[in-house]
Amino acid sequence: MQIDCKVTFYPGPKIVKASKGDNLLEVARKAGIEINSVCGGDGICGKCKVVVREGAVSAEATVLLTRGEIQRGFVLACKAIINSDLEVEIPAESTFEGAQIVIEGVENKFAYSPIAEVDRSKELEEKEIFIHSALATKLFLKLPSPDLKDNVSDLTRLYRELRKGRSIPIMQTGLTNIKNLSALLRSSNWDVTVTLGKRNETTEIVQIEAGDTSKNNFGIAVDIGTTTVVAHLIDLNTQETLGAKGTYNKQITYGDDVITRIVYASEKDGLEKLNAAIVENINSLIASLVTENNIRLSDVAAVLCAGNTTMTHLLLKIDPQYIRKEPYVPTASFVPVIRASEVGIKINPRGLLSCVPAVASYVGGDMTAGVLAAGINKSSDLSVLIDMGTNGEIVLGNKDWTVCAACSSGPAFEGSGMKCGMRARLGAIQTVEISKDFDVQYAVIGNGKPHGICGSALIDILAEFLKVGVVERSGKIKRSLNTNRIRINEDNIAEFVLVFKEETDTNEDIVISETDIDNLIRAKGAIYSGTAILVRSMGLGFNDVKHFYISGAFGSHLNIEKAIFFGLLPDIPREKYKFIGNSSIAGARMCLLSMENYEEASEIAQKMTSFELSSVPQYMDEYMSALFLPHTDLSLFPTVSAALK
Amino acid sequence: MQIDCKVTFYPGPKIVKASKGDNLLEVARKAGIEINSVCGGDGICGKCKVVVREGAVSAEATVLLTRGEIQRGFVLACKAIINSDLEVEIPAESTFEGAQIVIEGVENKFAYSPIAEVDRSKELEEKEIFIHSALATKLFLKLPSPDLKDNVSDLTRLYRELRKGRSIPIMQTGLTNIKNLSALLRSSNWDVTVTLGKRNETTEIVQIEAGDTSKNNFGIAVDIGTTTVVAHLIDLNTQETLGAKGTYNKQITYGDDVITRIVYASEKDGLEKLNAAIVENINSLIASLVTENNIRLSDVAAVLCAGNTTMTHLLLKIDPQYIRKEPYVPTASFVPVIRASEVGIKINPRGLLSCVPAVASYVGGDMTAGVLAAGINKSSDLSVLIDMGTNGEIVLGNKDWTVCAACSSGPAFEGSGMKCGMRARLGAIQTVEISKDFDVQYAVIGNGKPHGICGSALIDILAEFLKVGVVERSGKIKRSLNTNRIRINEDNIAEFVLVFKEETDTNEDIVISETDIDNLIRAKGAIYSGTAILVRSMGLGFNDVKHFYISGAFGSHLNIEKAIFFGLLPDIPREKYKFIGNSSIAGARMCLLSMENYEEASEIAQKMTSFELSSVPQYMDEYMSALFLPHTDLSLFPTVSAALK
Repeated sequence: MQIDCKVTFYPGPKIVKASKGDNLLEVARKAGIEINSVCGGDGICGKCKVVVREGAVSAEATVLLTRGEIQRGFVLACKAIINSDLEVEIPAESTFEGAQIVIEGVENKFAYSPIAEVDRSKELEEKEIFIHSALATKLFLKLPSPDLKDNVSDLTRLYRELRKGRSIPIMQTGLTNIKNLSALLRSSNWDVTVTLGKRNETTEIVQIEAGDTSKNNFGIAVDIGTTTVVAHLIDLNTQETLGAKGTYNKQITYGDDVITRIVYASEKDGLEKLNAAIVENINSLIASLVTENNIRLSDVAAVLCAGNTTMTHLLLKIDPQYIRKEPYVPTASFVPVIRASEVGIKINPRGLLSCVPAVASYVGGDMTAGVLAAGINKSSDLSVLIDMGTNGEIVLGNKDWTVCAACSSGPAFEGSGMKCGMRARLGAIQTVEISKDFDVQYAVIGNGKPHGICGSALIDILAEFLKVGVVERSGKIKRSLNTNRIRINEDNIAEFVLVFKEETDTNEDIVISETDIDNLIRAKGAIYSGTAILVRSMGLGFNDVKHFYISGAFGSHLNIEKAIFFGLLPDIPREKYKFIGNSSIAGARMCLLSMENYEEASEIAQKMTSFELSSVPQYMDEYMSALFLPHTDLSLFPTVSAALK
Repeated sequence: MQIDCKVTFYPGPKIVKASKGDNLLEVARKAGIEINSVCGGDGICGKCKVVVREGAVSAEATVLLTRGEIQRGFVLACKAIINSDLEVEIPAESTFEGAQIVIEGVENKFAYSPIAEVDRSKELEEKEIFIHSALATKLFLKLPSPDLKDNVSDLTRLYRELRKGRSIPIMQTGLTNIKNLSALLRSSNWDVTVTLGKRNETTEIVQIEAGDTSKNNFGIAVDIGTTTVVAHLIDLNTQETLGAKGTYNKQITYGDDVITRIVYASEKDGLEKLNAAIVENINSLIASLVTENNIRLSDVAAVLCAGNTTMTHLLLKIDPQYIRKEPYVPTASFVPVIRASEVGIKINPRGLLSCVPAVASYVGGDMTAGVLAAGINKSSDLSVLIDMGTNGEIVLGNKDWTVCAACSSGPAFEGSGMKCGMRARLGAIQTVEISKDFDVQYAVIGNGKPHGICGSALIDILAEFLKVGVVERSGKIKRSLNTNRIRINEDNIAEFVLVFKEETDTNEDIVISETDIDNLIRAKGAIYSGTAILVRSMGLGFNDVKHFYISGAFGSHLNIEKAIFFGLLPDIPREKYKFIGNSSIAGARMCLLSMENYEEASEIAQKMTSFELSSVPQYMDEYMSALFLPHTDLSLFPTVSAALK
């Protein structure tokens, strides 16, 4: 006899019906509740830990839970059999949100524009790289031992040797290093390795070690996105990227976008919680990177972060509330280099933390980093950079000037607000093709059954809808079409079934509704019109722009052709487009590796003019015109227009 | 009936016989044990607190002792009647050593050379003083409030306003200030006072306060002597010295000279104790100064210390052991500006501490400060500076070059090692004249009964002895003279009674023995021969020297004429001599008030060549020749020679 049980999942709460004897993980999955699991429910990976607050479960013995965890109610969801009504709490680390993103490979998903890279390294070579150009540099020194004819102080001896053939005008060091200096120099027989750190305009002796440890000099570049956090481990001597890790920003628990997080930061302990979340994120990424690469944490002496202005404030535990209040003033756009330990980031205890400077409240260090990575500030050619993150940000300029704007596209391209949207991770449909008879071909990340649709596929879908005529140019689904994929849902809204439930891992249809389409059109309209207004405000047209750099979380799967068809990107020669992936971390990496790059970034941030789109009278008209597929004015999209005919 | 009691005083121990009913303070004084007392035993000042460890005393009730102190055995010695055998502990603060030195007045005892002062202030005026030239400067700023057209970050707004019309190329600030910035700016209606600190080549925003607090900007200059510590409270806006305090260096408990302290620093907890002692000294001087001048501690944002190299190491808790080991290398001669709180000095929690740079292990920042105060480095004239502190230090030079040497004169002129020697404080004989019939005239600090003889009087005595023929030129007392002042003591050594016990406050004769005379001759011989060798090594003679600056702890009572007669100073035209008092604190004050002065001090320290006297072959001969009164070679002292004829 089947006994009904009620399982209440937290956070939420979400109440789900189940039967006594059901497997807890399966019940959660059927209900669309995300619980992490790597081993597929075999009780091996230990990723699906949940806490049973109320009610009874039975479960096998396991070594994956400590005695303390079991006493606090922890159980592996995949091995828990429901015995009664339950109240179940899903800790952040057991959701996909809390789990690390699978990164396809450094060269691939997170590499930055090879063009920018080659240009820059050549240039640095020509310039003869300043010996401690990286945020942290290790130098092995053999000091002459003192005698009566040369008995300057130990510190003077060290400074003297450091300055031999090196231009280090302003050098500082802390009392901690001075206190240890005499004993260290003598016990190491005057052979020491000095870690020099760049603290803005000055050079700091960060650490002094006995013997030659100069080979062990690593740094971390971090992109702090509103949604994802990515870290690269970099050998600061060879400039090689040794590993890359990504994870979802734990702050998501407190709000999806920067505005809700700023609001949350004003609540009691809000700022502390948001700060703790991102610091935990970064620490966990660093811990994974050093462990997997067999590196000591103490050999990591530098962290360089790029993030939007709010993310940077939260990282440094600076109240971000004035960012969202007119006239939108951040506390700091340039933040000084500090000791990483000051914000709880765990590297070498005296290691440094630097952040890429921001332009304004809504154009952050991530954009500065993007401009640097794309090399816009070095080129006489006019370029546009569009970053499609949780918000859309646009830069236009060249080596002489740059303007930028943020457009409130919202996180639609990250799957947010979509009925079946999700971020680009395991189970996400990444690319879609639809034939004239509405047959749907799709590819899924990880090649399993699909779970939802991520950004690149959403763009594909809209382009295909237009091409094969699923929708009108207004975005309305043609209800009259002869296909079982189109139907009217319980809210009386038309929707298109992309994947029927038989093929999905949720046992529910994966659909796109007219509401979803509206969302996507508004998002693309914001980006397209923002770009158009920005270009036009400078008295230019799209044809004047030589390079169109696109960065964002699409992975390597953004289909430029379809993005144009959809009306997201202007209809210009395709060779002008270059998808440069995560340009924020690319720029962060460059700043980590070279002070010259950091100074360039500072100059970029300082010189860039932030443009308030809403203050341009034509913006609303332009935006309204862009709410069509691809646009009200078809003449702007000649190739699309031709294809549609 | 008189009942005998035994009183054991600690530290010591010193055992003293007394009678039941005796006053404890009187018993201590009769035994020559120093217990502080300002009110003269009236139970008013509360300075004579001691702890009765064992035994019984009776005492009146007093509000000068807390309940806790009484429970721990504290009693006012002046009001304690002995009832039994006692064990009594005298805390450091109740001895003269622990008590503050009576300072005669800022203008007087601790002022620096008026010539140097006038020269320098003129020069600064001409140069148009840099607005934040002092170690700490307060600036009141009225920031424009932000609007949509001017919405740079709060920190950028602050930097921008600070830099208006001011050249501050490298500006830094800590995360603490940034975290508070947004709220502070808005709550203060954009009117704030910024404290700028000079941290070597950079400028730091030390503190930001709401409203206009720019008038409250004070600093402390400190001279850390081996024996005494002196502090001046200075208004950094008006450059006025508001008060001066001196005290004995509490480190004396652990050794009289730098060598014994360096040895002590190597013992378990030795460095900690020595550091704690000097920090306590400085904190107590600062506390007195701010209290008496009705100033808030938080308005003191800068401390500038001058001291010998060992004193500076101990202040910063840096192990000084290599200073005394060949090849005599200090850990640091230039120490960076740090936060005063890093070493426990209590001023504004973010206030700065800077130390005048040293030349070498045995020529410290006090000498650098002295050269700066005397203005030797600015003059084309050749000058000599002799500092007679616990050790003798000599500088020779002009604006083009300077050489220096330390001579091991020992602390004889501070009264150390003398049978009746004492430091220049209440009860010390300060000047002496002896007539041909051996009548002795003397002056006592405080005008009471004499307790001992201090440095200036010791020089007087030796000069008078030679003049009236009490001693041979070898320093031997003429035993055959017809006076009751000359006698042979129990150790079979001749001595001269300066004051008979009837006139002293110890009830014992105040005498000078041949051993004392030997000590003084060796000390003066070291200084004279050191100076002579230094001058001669540069191919010069005393006649080439235009100015002879004398600094030291003699107060204003050093008699140059008698110092020459004694053979301590060369016999050159008297107008060349200038007594400049405590030149160490004068230089510290100058560095506190102006970064230009500090940079000059750095240059002085860097350019000065330290001279190892013992490595000069002629030194020993020269020294031996100087062990006569005034010298073996009378032709070097023509005016003395004439007077003696």
